[in-house]
Amino acid sequence: MLDLTSLAAVSVETSNTFILTAVLLTLAVVYLASKLGGGLCARIGLPEVLGELLGGVLVGISALHVVIFPEQGVTAADSSIIGLLELTSDLTEQGAGVVFQTQAAIIDLLSEIGVVVLLLEVGLACNLDELIKIGPKAALVAIAGVAAPFAIGAMGLVYIFGVAPIPAVFVGAALTATSIGITAKVLSQLGKIATTEGQIIIGAAVLDDILGIILLAVVASLAKTGEVDVSNIIYLLVVASLFLGGAILLGRQYSNFLVRTFGDNQGQLLVSALIFALLMSYLASAIGLEALLGAFAAGLILGETTKHKELQQQITPLAYALVPIFFVSVGARTNIGVLNPLLPENRQSLVIALFLAVAAIVSQLAAGYVLPAKDNLNRLAIGIGMIPRGEVALVFAGMGLSSGVLSESLNVSIVVMVIMTTFIAPPLVKWAMSDERFPPIPLDPADPTDDSDNPGDTHTSESLENQGANV
Amino acid sequence: MLDLTSLAAVSVETSNTFILTAVLLTLAVVYLASKLGGGLCARIGLPEVLGELLGGVLVGISALHVVIFPEQGVTAADSSIIGLLELTSDLTEQGAGVVFQTQAAIIDLLSEIGVVVLLLEVGLACNLDELIKIGPKAALVAIAGVAAPFAIGAMGLVYIFGVAPIPAVFVGAALTATSIGITAKVLSQLGKIATTEGQIIIGAAVLDDILGIILLAVVASLAKTGEVDVSNIIYLLVVASLFLGGAILLGRQYSNFLVRTFGDNQGQLLVSALIFALLMSYLASAIGLEALLGAFAAGLILGETTKHKELQQQITPLAYALVPIFFVSVGARTNIGVLNPLLPENRQSLVIALFLAVAAIVSQLAAGYVLPAKDNLNRLAIGIGMIPRGEVALVFAGMGLSSGVLSESLNVSIVVMVIMTTFIAPPLVKWAMSDERFPPIPLDPADPTDDSDNPGDTHTSESLENQGANV
Repeated sequence: MLDLTSLAAVSVETSNTFILTAVLLTLAVVYLASKLGGGLCARIGLPEVLGELLGGVLVGISALHVVIFPEQGVTAADSSIIGLLELTSDLTEQGAGVVFQTQAAIIDLLSEIGVVVLLLEVGLACNLDELIKIGPKAALVAIAGVAAPFAIGAMGLVYIFGVAPIPAVFVGAALTATSIGITAKVLSQLGKIATTEGQIIIGAAVLDDILGIILLAVVASLAKTGEVDVSNIIYLLVVASLFLGGAILLGRQYSNFLVRTFGDNQGQLLVSALIFALLMSYLASAIGLEALLGAFAAGLILGETTKHKELQQQITPLAYALVPIFFVSVGARTNIGVLNPLLPENRQSLVIALFLAVAAIVSQLAAGYVLPAKDNLNRLAIGIGMIPRGEVALVFAGMGLSSGVLSESLNVSIVVMVIMTTFIAPPLVKWAMSDERFPPIPLDPADPTDDSDNPGDTHTSESLENQGANV
Repeated sequence: MLDLTSLAAVSVETSNTFILTAVLLTLAVVYLASKLGGGLCARIGLPEVLGELLGGVLVGISALHVVIFPEQGVTAADSSIIGLLELTSDLTEQGAGVVFQTQAAIIDLLSEIGVVVLLLEVGLACNLDELIKIGPKAALVAIAGVAAPFAIGAMGLVYIFGVAPIPAVFVGAALTATSIGITAKVLSQLGKIATTEGQIIIGAAVLDDILGIILLAVVASLAKTGEVDVSNIIYLLVVASLFLGGAILLGRQYSNFLVRTFGDNQGQLLVSALIFALLMSYLASAIGLEALLGAFAAGLILGETTKHKELQQQITPLAYALVPIFFVSVGARTNIGVLNPLLPENRQSLVIALFLAVAAIVSQLAAGYVLPAKDNLNRLAIGIGMIPRGEVALVFAGMGLSSGVLSESLNVSIVVMVIMTTFIAPPLVKWAMSDERFPPIPLDPADPTDDSDNPGDTHTSESLENQGANV
């Protein structure tokens, strides 16, 4: 209960009510955008996640201004939600600032929790044995998928566009990290996470993310001090290895012991799984990795337990409710104004962006074909699955701009490249992974006893199958 | 994707990371408190929700300072979470203020969404036909449950404690509104929502909430202008009636039409239900009622559709994840310092609080016995179910204090009364509703076709049954 002993209590209470109202309304709009966009795309045979992104564009900074964020340089006066509240309630202009800032921070955080839950769900659907088995292949794809865009991007900028070496290296580095969220969601909706190709994509994207963070640390210290901070790189390599190694050990040896401490009823089970996933996410974030890697590791470990099916059934509705907030926010943050070729100031950025996007796409396709042909894998699908560049690229872009290494125009090029790869990947993945192009491997039927030691256990959950039918 | 074209981008990004880390860690602690408290209470035969409240006390303002809120007069320096972040990361003291404020706002909002989801779940488990049938009885209980504590509280303060009439009326009014959340959760965990007694309690508590809000408007205008604003009261009566009437009409006539627009796959179904519940909550909040009443009405309407079982299965895990945040926050906000009788300044408040709590409890028990004996209902259980006083009382207390009508001491008395009734109700409800005292009515087995027109359909969901087994 509120401790209302302070005199400011009532005004706090009032402002809390406005914040609640603003968030409820924003969430309703976010879900509407997700449902309409997803539903329309599903009807014309495109992946739902593309529709969610486009729905986000509609309600975001580019159009309706419902889902906008202060760091985009907007204020309460720009927000449609705040405008509606001022019109229909006694929210004052002073109060509006606080309500807007808080509402935006809450939506931002819910979207980050959305991608954390998505990676938890993806981790649960993965198979640790399979991931370890394909580990070397995933590492090969990841290394190729980092080296190729870095080299092509940096060299192309220097030799084709005459960019100076330091900014060129910076942009090249921004091209390296794969966005796991987009591909994972498409794979999950297609029911293809448990395929060997799906596992290689997820494994490579996770390794890629870690390599990207290390590269970010290198480039950041290069920009700041002009030198490479070797101790920091060693630290990151060590903690990342310990984290992944610890997760694998925990998954192989102690996962059932862990789950026995969780309690028996369904509520206790879900809450315990959430505690574990939250602590792992916090740990990943605290040691300098990304929170979503922690959630993925938690999902992987929980996926090894005898309760993985019950957990999947409980976490799927959470993902239904939270993941759309992430994708709609991604779309909402996309300022399609920078894509307008009629504005002269956009043209050079657009040409460079197009080059970067092509470099990223070609490099990732090449990364898929690094795998030997004799394995008989769908290498095209693996390469396509690695296409989306994401948040790490945007962090590079922002850091490069604020440190003065990148020009405004190169920064916009990175943003546009991210937009292009993000929006192009879902339909391509769906096409490359389609049943016609890529006949489903018959699943190992030997899993009636829910025995997680069975190496053929592909963990194909009913929910993922159901989703697959509706992509 | 982030529009990182502004120079402040990187610092925003950094602060976002700290906020995410702080929220992940706070949520992990909240769930741990809920699991430990709930598990311990379940083991010794007490309701889990009491354990969640006590777990909240442990992590809140009274002890560990993990879940604390700025309106309690604390700053970032008081927060254990911020302390840990400062110790383990490069969060600065300046940054800490923003991170603390945002983290607290997010936890507060998640707890409010928690009670909204709880009422959605409760609405889904209710039966509209049954609610309409017991409507007159619920109204009787609600009116008695408002009139009795108001009269006893106000008169007792004047004649026993010599309090002046205006503050006495204020405190009396604060005694009138029932907190739906606590009782609903206990009933839900016992699997007794669908009983006639459960339906009467829920129905009466909803009406009570509306009466409490109207009374709040009366007393507020009395305190502000010295007069009663009749037009505002009429407005509230009309919108509340239209809202409830509209919800019933929608539930009876158009609910299946509504759900047909929702889409076929499970994700679309849940997202559509959330859109509907969010819009109803927003509507309730916008017309001056409480958001949770909107969620309850949405649940009631969705419960009338052919998809109510699928929706229950999807919403139950959401409730598992969100509702504990509400109960732990309620416990965390409880400052048990005001209960210490060794402090002389507490004594008078405590004596008055004890009187108020007894007045509230006796009045609610009497409200149960207003029902005619011939109906053969468990009237004791109905009265006990109405005991918890909640948020509306605290809003009264805060408003009375800030307007100068209430003394600091009377304000504390109201807070203590709320603490007492909140913590005493769960074990009493569990006892009064126990199978020994209150043999379960055999459920109507005639629901194999999921026919919502079947008046005997008690909507007893598996999930609620499962919960019941573990209280």
